[in-house]
Amino acid sequence: MAHKIPHVPEATVARLTTYLRCLEQLEAQGVKTVCSRTIARLAGTNDAQFRKDLSYFGGIGTRGRGYSVERLQEHLRHILNLHRPRHLILIGVGNLGQALLGFPGFHRSPFHIVAAFDNDAKKVGTTVHGVRVRHIRSLARFVRSHPVHIAILAVPAAVAQSIADLVVRAGIPAILNFAPIHLQLPPEILVRQVDLTRELEVLSYVLGAER
Amino acid sequence: MAHKIPHVPEATVARLTTYLRCLEQLEAQGVKTVCSRTIARLAGTNDAQFRKDLSYFGGIGTRGRGYSVERLQEHLRHILNLHRPRHLILIGVGNLGQALLGFPGFHRSPFHIVAAFDNDAKKVGTTVHGVRVRHIRSLARFVRSHPVHIAILAVPAAVAQSIADLVVRAGIPAILNFAPIHLQLPPEILVRQVDLTRELEVLSYVLGAER
Repeated sequence: MAHKIPHVPEATVARLTTYLRCLEQLEAQGVKTVCSRTIARLAGTNDAQFRKDLSYFGGIGTRGRGYSVERLQEHLRHILNLHRPRHLILIGVGNLGQALLGFPGFHRSPFHIVAAFDNDAKKVGTTVHGVRVRHIRSLARFVRSHPVHIAILAVPAAVAQSIADLVVRAGIPAILNFAPIHLQLPPEILVRQVDLTRELEVLSYVLGAER
Repeated sequence: MAHKIPHVPEATVARLTTYLRCLEQLEAQGVKTVCSRTIARLAGTNDAQFRKDLSYFGGIGTRGRGYSVERLQEHLRHILNLHRPRHLILIGVGNLGQALLGFPGFHRSPFHIVAAFDNDAKKVGTTVHGVRVRHIRSLARFVRSHPVHIAILAVPAAVAQSIADLVVRAGIPAILNFAPIHLQLPPEILVRQVDLTRELEVLSYVLGAER
């Protein structure tokens, strides 16, 4: 099965999601078939890279024949396991957390935010963008009765590690961390970090010292 | 000068920002000196990688002597050009854009959000988290009188490309894009993409089909 193939570079997986975005745009524009060169160009890479990325999963289509936009999307969704429903929780209903609760991608199949958690009594019991806010104390109990695949951490850096430890103890296998801190976690826990400060600092590096 | 050294992998630059985060945490904990192994472990990498990353910029310190937490931070900030003030604008004062305007990292030296832009008459003229919202029509005029280094795009995918074109025409050299679309831009424009859907899809891939 494609998802069990080992040693697929993370950069390849990230590019697969970019190809999927490009195909969704093409479909929205009414395009039915597309050549690999066009997808590669739209995704900011080249034909050879595109073919190599797909080759990890057995490849698809014949060179020069073009791809069905619909079928290639289906193939990529299958590789990315997007046919599996994923239950998400968000922890930290502050400024960023509230915005994330309203982010359409977090409510788009197969992803569903099933609950939010905070320690602020004024927020607990309210509903933000359709999601009920619960007390962080009730996290472990909630997870015992509702399977949760991914915890989104939108808490301050100072408490991020202890909240991440709580998430791990509750048995949640994956974390999307927005706190600007490198979490120390057991190796079996999957983590993706969105660090907005990092993004600015990388741009600052590339901008250089002259401008 | 360090920032002119070519062929530094983007992954190295990203790790430099992680080292900087770790050093900031250590300083907050009152730590004065640290060995490379500790920094590497905190940053989720190894000693050899840490030394290699620093070696692009001439290295610092002597093996086994440890690093001054303060001096190493200073060195990393210099490499990342964080001594240069960077003026940012944010385009798209929706749900995500409003949260980003409140994000502390975007108001932290050397970064300053100097203006926000939207096309919604109800938002234009208001102030969100201390930042004045202007009409998107006035972007080019604003940039002529205020140097802007980075434009943050928090607009819907459907308009992101045309807004990015506007940003490029106005002469802004770098874009931090939150729209889930791969922008087609001239090669001299620096772009970083924060794609929250991608992050979830990569986690979905790694979670696999069994859970």
